Amino acid sequence: MTERYAAEALIDYAEALFAAAGLEADKAALVAPLMVEADLMGHTTHGLQLVAPYLAALADGSMTAAGAPEVLSDRGPVVVWDGRRLSGVWLTATAVDLAVERARQYGTCTVSIRRAHHIACLAAFLERATAQGMMVTLTCSDPSVASVAPFGGTRAIYTPDPVAVGIPTSGDPILIDISASITTNGLTNRLHKEGRNLEHDWLIDADGNPSKDPSVLFTDPPGTILPVGGLDHGHKGYGLALIVEALTQALSGHGRADPPEGWGAGIWVQVQDPTAFAGADAFTRQTDRLAELCRTNPPRPGVEAVRLPGDGALARKRTALADGVALYPGIIEGLAEWAGKLGVAAPTPL
Amino acid sequence: MTERYAAEALIDYAEALFAAAGLEADKAALVAPLMVEADLMGHTTHGLQLVAPYLAALADGSMTAAGAPEVLSDRGPVVVWDGRRLSGVWLTATAVDLAVERARQYGTCTVSIRRAHHIACLAAFLERATAQGMMVTLTCSDPSVASVAPFGGTRAIYTPDPVAVGIPTSGDPILIDISASITTNGLTNRLHKEGRNLEHDWLIDADGNPSKDPSVLFTDPPGTILPVGGLDHGHKGYGLALIVEALTQALSGHGRADPPEGWGAGIWVQVQDPTAFAGADAFTRQTDRLAELCRTNPPRPGVEAVRLPGDGALARKRTALADGVALYPGIIEGLAEWAGKLGVAAPTPL
Repeated sequence: MTERYAAEALIDYAEALFAAAGLEADKAALVAPLMVEADLMGHTTHGLQLVAPYLAALADGSMTAAGAPEVLSDRGPVVVWDGRRLSGVWLTATAVDLAVERARQYGTCTVSIRRAHHIACLAAFLERATAQGMMVTLTCSDPSVASVAPFGGTRAIYTPDPVAVGIPTSGDPILIDISASITTNGLTNRLHKEGRNLEHDWLIDADGNPSKDPSVLFTDPPGTILPVGGLDHGHKGYGLALIVEALTQALSGHGRADPPEGWGAGIWVQVQDPTAFAGADAFTRQTDRLAELCRTNPPRPGVEAVRLPGDGALARKRTALADGVALYPGIIEGLAEWAGKLGVAAPTPL
Repeated sequence: MTERYAAEALIDYAEALFAAAGLEADKAALVAPLMVEADLMGHTTHGLQLVAPYLAALADGSMTAAGAPEVLSDRGPVVVWDGRRLSGVWLTATAVDLAVERARQYGTCTVSIRRAHHIACLAAFLERATAQGMMVTLTCSDPSVASVAPFGGTRAIYTPDPVAVGIPTSGDPILIDISASITTNGLTNRLHKEGRNLEHDWLIDADGNPSKDPSVLFTDPPGTILPVGGLDHGHKGYGLALIVEALTQALSGHGRADPPEGWGAGIWVQVQDPTAFAGADAFTRQTDRLAELCRTNPPRPGVEAVRLPGDGALARKRTALADGVALYPGIIEGLAEWAGKLGVAAPTPL
């Protein structure tokens, strides 16, 4: 039987590991629960699995351990930071909190961040804003990495380019986390290591032939992940990717026109306060109706029920908080080596 | 050979028709060139083809002919209007212009509009902002119409839910106009009238079976247009649609929770001024590089070259301005009846 851990024990473990690796205390305390949050929601490629490479980045100095971002611009409703390669998770959470505060005053606030380290799981940040009645949009890209080609092309020029949006309702929020490509680097890397294939032809090899085998991404030159819409209507995913690249790199002023600085992110965070628009009640009256129209929709044959984005993640989170967290195989083992090196005690399963 | 018209002659014609139908002069003058702009760009379902139904809407009072929107909120960087069922094209163009002006001051400006009449071609509005160095995002939905089901479902609950984004470069802007569904109401309606099929299985019938025949949308109950990603990964298009529904209806406070008011739109316009972020030059340095990475990408077999969104439309526009506009079959004939009724002279082909 899979071992389960109390979420609190995993948070304490991650925080202790980060602190022992030299991450400033306020940052370790903010980042650790957000890593575990991803595992609680079932996004297991973007939770504790990333702690080991983050510890390695602290060790080799590619993640900055202390200090604040440099403020490049502050117009009130627009703030631009140079992240100085600080933790992308810490920068993003801090940016969401600032944007929520500023949105109360201005109606919206946009925070643009360049030169952050990796940001992990976008969905994990959304409830910080929706719990306060705010609509939040979050997007990022990594200008030093490329795994997706433009529609019709064969050479990777950008990342999967995710967009996450949190939409308050009077009940559970709608938590959307989609990318501009059909699948992600995290999943294709994991399946490649495990020798497994994708469900469908979500990749093309370097010559442009459709494939479900992630090993086509590891040839020289490598194949690419297809944009959303695939070979059929991939101009849609291509358009979405260009939007994300512009929001995250052009507005922040650091991107693919610059020399690569290693694993990192350009980030764009925007919060909108419904009370500055038509009002909080007017907002949730519409989103409640939208949620109802989705949940009561007669499903296609073979589909049990139509769900809203976030429904599955929030259900998994409730179960994990009640019954303990069953981590994806290999995650605890991957951290044990670091725990030994840093002198941190591993958590005890429930 | 297809007849061609001078763009100016078509604009004068549309303006005269609108004015004769009672649309206030400033509105006729702003709307007419935007209708022709869509035809110039090749978006022939959303240009002059819509003038006849707009004239009918003016005649039956479902489009308000005169006056201004009611200002529901004004925080500076956030403005909310009740459109009073005024021309959606006029409201959108006016909102983009206001947002450009306000973005110079605040860095961004968001205009949310409820109860607009139909907005026509989103791509036609983008250059108003990009020509001034601004990044613009534009999205709309029609709360009285539904043709797309949530992923996994079978009953239509929302519209194709388009998103258009204009991104300045130092050359031609990138003009993205995508929808959250694979295809549009405009195209499926036209093909249905012409007895033609779609290229691929972009629809499902009322029981959830894939189809390329637009007549499945006209049964009782009707089938639906599939979300972007189709049956394979349609949760992506579903997520995008929910974002659009929230931006356009929840923020504006009028949507599917309200009694249907007829053909119209909720609209969300946002302009971002790169000079308030990392600077205009820093912005185009990144977008120029992005454009270059796309255009020089080695194409898949069968693809001539990788193009940027907007490349085709801007090329068509240049040709049409130089050589005259070849309208889609039936458009001039469709307007002739209204021209006779309103006593407006039809334009002479070149």
